[in-house]
Amino acid sequence: MLRSSLLTLTRIGSNRLMSTAAKLTTVEVNDKTGIATLTMCRPPVNGLNLELLKDLSQSIDEIESNKSRGLILTSSNPTIFSAGLDILEMYKPDKERIRAFWTSLQDVWLALYGSSVPTAAAINGHSPAGGCLLATSCEYRVMLPKFTIGLNETQLGIVAPKWFMSSFLSVLPRRIAERALNQGRMFTTEEALQVGLIDEVANTKEEAIEKCSAFIGSFAKVNPLARALTKQQFRAADLQQLENERVQDLEKFLFFVNQPAVQKGLGLYLESLKKKAKN
Amino acid sequence: MLRSSLLTLTRIGSNRLMSTAAKLTTVEVNDKTGIATLTMCRPPVNGLNLELLKDLSQSIDEIESNKSRGLILTSSNPTIFSAGLDILEMYKPDKERIRAFWTSLQDVWLALYGSSVPTAAAINGHSPAGGCLLATSCEYRVMLPKFTIGLNETQLGIVAPKWFMSSFLSVLPRRIAERALNQGRMFTTEEALQVGLIDEVANTKEEAIEKCSAFIGSFAKVNPLARALTKQQFRAADLQQLENERVQDLEKFLFFVNQPAVQKGLGLYLESLKKKAKN
Amino acid sequence: MLRSSLLTLTRIGSNRLMSTAAKLTTVEVNDKTGIATLTMCRPPVNGLNLELLKDLSQSIDEIESNKSRGLILTSSNPTIFSAGLDILEMYKPDKERIRAFWTSLQDVWLALYGSSVPTAAAINGHSPAGGCLLATSCEYRVMLPKFTIGLNETQLGIVAPKWFMSSFLSVLPRRIAERALNQGRMFTTEEALQVGLIDEVANTKEEAIEKCSAFIGSFAKVNPLARALTKQQFRAADLQQLENERVQDLEKFLFFVNQPAVQKGLGLYLESLKKKAKN
Repeated sequence: MLRSSLLTLTRIGSNRLMSTAAKLTTVEVNDKTGIATLTMCRPPVNGLNLELLKDLSQSIDEIESNKSRGLILTSSNPTIFSAGLDILEMYKPDKERIRAFWTSLQDVWLALYGSSVPTAAAINGHSPAGGCLLATSCEYRVMLPKFTIGLNETQLGIVAPKWFMSSFLSVLPRRIAERALNQGRMFTTEEALQVGLIDEVANTKEEAIEKCSAFIGSFAKVNPLARALTKQQFRAADLQQLENERVQDLEKFLFFVNQPAVQKGLGLYLESLKKKAKN
Repeated sequence: MLRSSLLTLTRIGSNRLMSTAAKLTTVEVNDKTGIATLTMCRPPVNGLNLELLKDLSQSIDEIESNKSRGLILTSSNPTIFSAGLDILEMYKPDKERIRAFWTSLQDVWLALYGSSVPTAAAINGHSPAGGCLLATSCEYRVMLPKFTIGLNETQLGIVAPKWFMSSFLSVLPRRIAERALNQGRMFTTEEALQVGLIDEVANTKEEAIEKCSAFIGSFAKVNPLARALTKQQFRAADLQQLENERVQDLEKFLFFVNQPAVQKGLGLYLESLKKKAKN
Repeated sequence: MLRSSLLTLTRIGSNRLMSTAAKLTTVEVNDKTGIATLTMCRPPVNGLNLELLKDLSQSIDEIESNKSRGLILTSSNPTIFSAGLDILEMYKPDKERIRAFWTSLQDVWLALYGSSVPTAAAINGHSPAGGCLLATSCEYRVMLPKFTIGLNETQLGIVAPKWFMSSFLSVLPRRIAERALNQGRMFTTEEALQVGLIDEVANTKEEAIEKCSAFIGSFAKVNPLARALTKQQFRAADLQQLENERVQDLEKFLFFVNQPAVQKGLGLYLESLKKKAKN
């Protein structure tokens, strides 16, 4: 049963049809296992822009309310899981849109990190910055060989907010997490496995999804309500921190992004991307 | 020098003789080492009911005030350290008794996790749920082969409270602790050793107690007051959290346990135990 | 370019010339790398007394404000990195001086642990107590073989304050950190490497400094402001805790140090040191 989020939204009601970005994710539920696979499909690199973030939120909410047995996050792109935040949202931003953008990112994290269903990421490509945030917000990670993952914000002249650190620290020892954050380190698949940033390696996307399904299957004999409450209690302090500081977190981001030096850096980075694209 | 807590209580005074459960633990002090061995002996499985918890509290307080060199927690049962909370206390509970029950469990944890003397668990049998809580509240764990240990609450449809998580997190990396809690995972002795949930394996109960004694002996050249203050400062945030939330923690437990679905689940579980016993 | 802090201070202005202890550290900036090496040189064992602490503060501030590429902390002594707090500051202390002493120690930790430049310790000798605090406040540690490092306060009858624990916990897993603190455990170079208390071993001081430089070089492509803000955000909770509790922390220390039992213990310890020196 493959259905696009758009179809789902149509069924849910007109009040959510405002999102024309619905095509940027698909949700496929496996009839046998009851596990939903949420696929990001925004070419070329699953850059997290406002529309993709809104659709991710809606898809996560949908999976949550449909009482799926679990959620597997993956990408339709064969070499990129997600390239992270779409820099075009941050460079010379529209005042209203950038607020909606950051608020949507907060929404996605709160929904995914706090999801009551078991979550796993089938990381079938590179996963820098926001891509790593999404992956580490899941409970389990299976990654394909020869890709990289990490919070490389400092390499881009950006500061990962506290809640990026929360997800990172939920899987990595503190010493390794801090150093990687400061360095903006990208881990190869092998390095990520060694430090615990990912849990398993798979050779194909299908195998990755199978391994994610097996992890979610490990909860088969567990009471779902008790599991959900246990997970949420474990993550409560992290979630509460952002809930309490959403406005300040937004203002901090806006202040930082609007610094001339940051704008200049983003501009140069975009230039370099364009040159790469031409060559 | 083997003396039952009952004898001790008699000597201490009539004001503590109200506890008719005193026979459920024994305290044996090794004359050479000055280390007290606290043995749980409530057949058939050291289920933590109100009486056993009260006696544990009294025995811990006694060891604390007698300025023993250390405390080793173990079981008189050859295959079960403690089966955890006695489900009969939670199924169709008496209103007053269940409050006393949960409050006593809080008391035991505060006394054991916050104990000023060095503590170690000689885990000579299975140690699920509350049994694992007691073991992880000690500073060191030696376990016999071919048993299991873990916080398996979600398997029983129950949510381990925050302070169970505190003890668990004091020994396990966060990533492993969260997953194990969500899965209600029981670790074999070997698995427990590998992740750090236990510190050593011993082949017999005697050897386990010897190894616990050796750990406690590692503090021989340490100033006891400085040690106690250091340990309590390290554990202060965890202890303070429960101290601050004792009433809410009790109410939360009562609300949860009295849910019809939870009562139904406990009833089914008790049925299955009875059937097992008959076969 | 080798220049003593004193020379630097002269250049900065007369308002900082009050410190006659300036000769107790040197700051050498490598012209090629732009990395500053801060050397403690207070014979015989780099005991942290008021003057050394004040000079450390000034040197760290200097390196910070000179926008050095990084800071490497090391010792001029061939066998001792730093022996920790100078016990003479705590034994029969002068009322005013001991307050300045402890406040200066707080200053050094806040400046070093919160430093915006990359920091590394070239541990070229034993590093107990306060020496270990300095080393673990850096972001990276390279140590020479056959020395020892650890927070051995409980062995001396002293309680390491919370912020010593913060630095320790920033590099060690909780289970290992707590046990080591309670035991006052000194780790050999090999043991320290195994648990992560140090990051690398080097055979000579020069090699240690090279390895520290290589670590600092790993930030070459990183935006310095983004790096500094990321590090400070990561360490903010620890730093804030001491900032909020500076006065209480000082009073707690004074109360503890002035206990007759503690004074007696320090006296006996000083006696034993004198006897050792004679033999």
